Amino acid sequence: MEAKAEFMTQVNDLYKFQAIQGHLGWDQETIMPAKGAEARGEILAWLASQRHEKLIDPNFGKVIAELENQETDEFLSANVKEMRRKYDEAVKIPTEFVAEFTKARSEALIAWQQARKESDFSLFSPHLEKLISMTREKIDYLGCEDTPYDVLLDEYEVGMKVSDYDPLFAELKERLVPLLSKIMQSGVEIPRLPESLVFTEKKQEKFCNEVSKAMGFDFEAGRMDISTHPFCAGLWPGDTRFTTRFDEKDPFSCLYAVMHESGHGLYEQGLPFEQSFSPAGGAISLGVHESQSRFWENQIGRTASFWKVVMPWFRREFPDCPDWDSETLDLIANEVKPDFIRVEADEITYNLHIMIRYEIEKKIFNENIPVDQIPTLWNNMMKDWFGIEVPNDSLGCLQDIHWSMGAFGYFPTYTLGNLYAAQLLSAMENELGNIDEIIASGDWSSMLTWLREKIHSKGSVLEPSDLIESATGSPPSPEPFLEYVEKKYSKLYNL
Amino acid sequence: MEAKAEFMTQVNDLYKFQAIQGHLGWDQETIMPAKGAEARGEILAWLASQRHEKLIDPNFGKVIAELENQETDEFLSANVKEMRRKYDEAVKIPTEFVAEFTKARSEALIAWQQARKESDFSLFSPHLEKLISMTREKIDYLGCEDTPYDVLLDEYEVGMKVSDYDPLFAELKERLVPLLSKIMQSGVEIPRLPESLVFTEKKQEKFCNEVSKAMGFDFEAGRMDISTHPFCAGLWPGDTRFTTRFDEKDPFSCLYAVMHESGHGLYEQGLPFEQSFSPAGGAISLGVHESQSRFWENQIGRTASFWKVVMPWFRREFPDCPDWDSETLDLIANEVKPDFIRVEADEITYNLHIMIRYEIEKKIFNENIPVDQIPTLWNNMMKDWFGIEVPNDSLGCLQDIHWSMGAFGYFPTYTLGNLYAAQLLSAMENELGNIDEIIASGDWSSMLTWLREKIHSKGSVLEPSDLIESATGSPPSPEPFLEYVEKKYSKLYNL
Repeated sequence: MEAKAEFMTQVNDLYKFQAIQGHLGWDQETIMPAKGAEARGEILAWLASQRHEKLIDPNFGKVIAELENQETDEFLSANVKEMRRKYDEAVKIPTEFVAEFTKARSEALIAWQQARKESDFSLFSPHLEKLISMTREKIDYLGCEDTPYDVLLDEYEVGMKVSDYDPLFAELKERLVPLLSKIMQSGVEIPRLPESLVFTEKKQEKFCNEVSKAMGFDFEAGRMDISTHPFCAGLWPGDTRFTTRFDEKDPFSCLYAVMHESGHGLYEQGLPFEQSFSPAGGAISLGVHESQSRFWENQIGRTASFWKVVMPWFRREFPDCPDWDSETLDLIANEVKPDFIRVEADEITYNLHIMIRYEIEKKIFNENIPVDQIPTLWNNMMKDWFGIEVPNDSLGCLQDIHWSMGAFGYFPTYTLGNLYAAQLLSAMENELGNIDEIIASGDWSSMLTWLREKIHSKGSVLEPSDLIESATGSPPSPEPFLEYVEKKYSKLYNL
Repeated sequence: MEAKAEFMTQVNDLYKFQAIQGHLGWDQETIMPAKGAEARGEILAWLASQRHEKLIDPNFGKVIAELENQETDEFLSANVKEMRRKYDEAVKIPTEFVAEFTKARSEALIAWQQARKESDFSLFSPHLEKLISMTREKIDYLGCEDTPYDVLLDEYEVGMKVSDYDPLFAELKERLVPLLSKIMQSGVEIPRLPESLVFTEKKQEKFCNEVSKAMGFDFEAGRMDISTHPFCAGLWPGDTRFTTRFDEKDPFSCLYAVMHESGHGLYEQGLPFEQSFSPAGGAISLGVHESQSRFWENQIGRTASFWKVVMPWFRREFPDCPDWDSETLDLIANEVKPDFIRVEADEITYNLHIMIRYEIEKKIFNENIPVDQIPTLWNNMMKDWFGIEVPNDSLGCLQDIHWSMGAFGYFPTYTLGNLYAAQLLSAMENELGNIDEIIASGDWSSMLTWLREKIHSKGSVLEPSDLIESATGSPPSPEPFLEYVEKKYSKLYNL
């Protein structure tokens, strides 16, 4: 067989396995009956090992090498580059390890759900211990040039290391902490929803669906379901599924989860379908993915102009809600408050939440701190940085799903997403004109078209930082984000 | 590797592929967004070819041969026997054909859904033509000893041929047609639900759930969802999913669909889990599977004693329903009427519906009648046998999903299920005592325990007819069914 055809068949096979893994993962998180967990873990472990065996096929290595010496188009070349990276990594890792790690993650996920529910870290800690020790083993297999944690960071955002994140986070912290402190002293009072109001699930669902559709999410090529932790899975062409959760006392939590996940969904729905089931046809990185979700959630959704547009939809579902104007709703949606839960955090404290996780992960992998010290470490940092006492581990180190999935090194990509989103907003404004006016017009298609052209349709042809540079004209920088929050919050809080 | 271990690894791999195919099929029928259809078809075709390639691995053939000459336990021996059958068949069929056939089926399914909705046979006929011609090709690959249709019949119930079904159906028809005619002339009037009543989906769901739980279905190891055509998928250990549909004017349709599918589900939930992901650990045949669903739906659910037990649950949800007694509800649930739709047919006409499909399939494969003659043939038989004019193809030859899935030869297993169910009921009564009293007691666990012991826990160790004989003491026979319907309906219709 011609090398290119042979290569693409193998790549498509690998990405079909991955698509199925994604599908079964979605099902596990949303609708699987409890007693299905054991067999599900077994099947996922089996799929992982089947996929790994296919990936490390020596003949595949030969085909990759052959194509590296040929002229190829940009998609094929991106595929070859990514598969070289994946192949070189995979051949260092035994298949049994891959299966065992997948199984350990499925078991840890169940233990974590229980531990979080009961706020009992001891139920989760043996699993966390195992995942950390297996992750260390994985780092040993892969080999590390700098620090062990670098190996993990690179897995979630290629090319990013401790030596990149440390100064970035320092710069952010230096400007966010004083801003936070000024906001807290501003004396601006945030209006509260009357305690008696109930926002039924059904009405929230209707309202949020309308918003998601207005963003451009295609529900004939996707679904919205319920899960404990909202997420989006771009399963395969024509099938992108996101989830949310409902709090009948608070309609904003669901709304912004839906806007966030719809933002992810729009990226998935805008990928180059003709490149499906290959890395080049997929999203380039978690950071870029997060930029799409945060763009819609924060830059669009948390504005007075947005509220002007959606107010009639909101009022139709919730006529008993106080007769607030869009400026008031904007303020409510942008309440800044050092609090316990990351996913509900405002734009200022959000990145501080990320830094706490980054610092702890760095200590775990670069300083080998023992697992049982994590809760105390977490709580101490929350006290130092936010001035609040964590009352239980569910509101502390048990809140996030990531560690139970063995996803160490993932969190910092959320901050990258925030930075990229602000940079994209600024570039978009240069090209399309005043974004606030576009939002207020209620027709958001020009923004989606811009994102489709600059980001979504590119698949994974460019590296994350090159993609951001090609879309915005400048390499990634924290400056647009810092300017954005300083301007936005100074106005909101009369600083 | 030791032959047994090597064999079981290969078998487990094959059945894991199959479990995933089942899962994706369930998703496709229940919740997949419309635009996901194309990629879903591609993935399913890919999985089918991956599985086929694994199955025809010559080394697997060698291992099977090796084990055929060894002493093995009953489960292993059943696995070896079944894999020999599957291997010998599969090696005759090219992998490309398997993939193409799977793809054609996915496409036909979509076309059929549309055709049925619009009652337009022409939308479906090119797909049906293709599936029939590919099925003929498959028969050629497999080779046929007797008639071509025999090859298909054997696929769905091993060992059954035209020469078995022809006399069986003749005997049934000979006694069912006169019974039907007597019932139609009995003059018994069936009470009707008031036109104005609405049975909301939510309340039907609650009521049906309660019945399903009372039967013993474990909702922690399963789910109930909605699909156009109710079905049950025993995905894998701890995860059995069935579906139903709601008609807000008719609560009985959903109830009996739920009892039917829960009956399938109980079989799946009672299989020997330690033999999971192997044929021996699965249901033995479609006929036996159908016996489980029909047992609960008809022998238990369509009785006055059943209604005595569930009446309070029914009244609680539907207090506006007429104050009928359990005998009246029994009569409503057992209304006999020659009508268009198989899945809603009573126990007398049901098997006649099957025979019509059997006769048409026999004509398609043994007499090569052209596809465009199917609607007329169907409608003429409905006129001859039932005396009714089929007003459109949605109520005629487009009603069933089976042909769109390329499942020719499947229908007769439904009749086998009806016969087995009656034979099981009779044997159960000999051992447990009066079944009517057990039903009326509201505690149905002794019946489930009996089925678990005699049928479910056996997996696929025995051939269908041997399993029925081991459970009932006699080889399969239509006599218990005929006695059952003659006795039951003579009483109901005062014959």
